[in-house]
Amino acid sequence: MTVRHELAVAALAPADFVPFGDVIEAAGEGIPINEGMAHRFHDLAAIDAGTGGGRLAISVFRARPWPRPIQVRVMERHPLGSQAFVPMSERPFAVVVAPPGPAPKPEDLRAFVTNGRQGVHYRPGVWHHPLLVLDQPADVLVLDRVGPGVDLDVVSFLAHGIFLTL
Amino acid sequence: MTVRHELAVAALAPADFVPFGDVIEAAGEGIPINEGMAHRFHDLAAIDAGTGGGRLAISVFRARPWPRPIQVRVMERHPLGSQAFVPMSERPFAVVVAPPGPAPKPEDLRAFVTNGRQGVHYRPGVWHHPLLVLDQPADVLVLDRVGPGVDLDVVSFLAHGIFLTL
Repeated sequence: MTVRHELAVAALAPADFVPFGDVIEAAGEGIPINEGMAHRFHDLAAIDAGTGGGRLAISVFRARPWPRPIQVRVMERHPLGSQAFVPMSERPFAVVVAPPGPAPKPEDLRAFVTNGRQGVHYRPGVWHHPLLVLDQPADVLVLDRVGPGVDLDVVSFLAHGIFLTL
Repeated sequence: MTVRHELAVAALAPADFVPFGDVIEAAGEGIPINEGMAHRFHDLAAIDAGTGGGRLAISVFRARPWPRPIQVRVMERHPLGSQAFVPMSERPFAVVVAPPGPAPKPEDLRAFVTNGRQGVHYRPGVWHHPLLVLDQPADVLVLDRVGPGVDLDVVSFLAHGIFLTL
């Protein structure tokens, strides 16, 4: 018999995401620019891509909706660089994270869902699940490090039987 | 009497944008990732933000639709860093550009409209109009340089009476 654990999914709030990185969104006041035709929400994520001779790459992921129920089968981290995901389609996605450090335990996991207008930035070493697009295909802008060295660690959570409550 | 010139607006095609920078979009083959749940369209724009002690900032512009008819009143450039605009709402925007070099003449201008799923990257020094969101408000992700030095030149086109054919 497989044990099944539910992982609660919370609406993504910037204060809850501080241990993991930044929420990239137009929140708060903003600075009027372009003769008032736009507001700039400035410098929202300190991307770190330069470690070990790396540089920032700008890519697009075209993602299919993840099959339900969503099981947390793997968590991964990029020790050398941070990674940001910004939706290009106003479509929510789910985020599963754990703080940097040794391989996370099930109780270290936190799950969030974006509101469709929020991106996320994971600091280097933050454990995260691969991109979890929901319901409809979506294009997502991805900013991450390219460069020398192995910048990926993966741990299996398959045996833990953890499912998102979505 | 004001002279009025029409500037034709073309659908944005990557080949036409080569003199100015890059189109950021999921076009072509892509690389399957995440067990086939997504395709990665990799390293689409060589952002240049490090000149003169600069660094890359990640910001969001929340923009109102530009009033019609759209007149090209100013063009600007950032000599020290490049700048990218990626839509977060699948909404088209217009792009008016001219090649790097001395202040452009009216005949140097080119105008494009995106398909809603395309972003653009202007190389350093490329002349461009401020963000021209069409029809509906939109959030747009902006990547550009922050750092020491004056990184903005502006020229007025007001007297030329140039309007986009949109």
